Amino acid sequence: MAVDAVIILNRKLVLIRRKNEPYKGGYALPGGFVELGETTEEAIKREAKEETGISIKIIDLVGIYSDPSRDPRGHTVSVVYLATGEGKPTAGTDAQDVYLFSLEHLPELAFDHGKIIRDAGDKINGILSKM
Amino acid sequence: MAVDAVIILNRKLVLIRRKNEPYKGGYALPGGFVELGETTEEAIKREAKEETGISIKIIDLVGIYSDPSRDPRGHTVSVVYLATGEGKPTAGTDAQDVYLFSLEHLPELAFDHGKIIRDAGDKINGILSKM
Repeated sequence: MAVDAVIILNRKLVLIRRKNEPYKGGYALPGGFVELGETTEEAIKREAKEETGISIKIIDLVGIYSDPSRDPRGHTVSVVYLATGEGKPTAGTDAQDVYLFSLEHLPELAFDHGKIIRDAGDKINGILSKM
Repeated sequence: MAVDAVIILNRKLVLIRRKNEPYKGGYALPGGFVELGETTEEAIKREAKEETGISIKIIDLVGIYSDPSRDPRGHTVSVVYLATGEGKPTAGTDAQDVYLFSLEHLPELAFDHGKIIRDAGDKINGILSKM
């Protein structure tokens, strides 16, 4: 059971570059696995902080992604949250580096993260319109 | 990883009575565990059909419920969908019996299912207003 986050910071999208396979070197949303005894909300806050140094505030749920082929390591269901971030991005444990990307010029993303961003489009615009 | 559904059929809520512990004999939303290689959407359609005989159409996501104390058997994260149903309710494998309840007169529910129904309130009203 995984969690990922679409994090908006300074009107930009927070992406990491993956340090490990699969998609080593690829850009991806910050995220990771839920630990026993942790809610999914706690898990994504912890993972975002660990990977990017950013404190996040959850705004909405983007969706559940559970296609068995979405992760080459095996069947991984991910709960994806939309969040806003605060703090200075700093590369952490599982991430090669942290980047802020303009939403108009995103790189190709690992896994199904490109689809996730497209699915979150309306909700991202909702956040931006209030900033 | 579990899935549950808030199913509206003939403007009523579909509930089962649990055949097994925990909450044996209690009313609950239809649902069960996701099997390997199955999406969460496929899992809830299968479970609803198995437990109630009803074919469901997923309308929306209600939320993710992941409080570690929500299931006395251990930490179980559930993805909860809002759905409409078709067909005649028929008790299935894991359910003692299937009931249609008026939304104004619901019984006490097992697990955190009462909270789930309250959380889904606005979305349920949205469905009812289109029927």
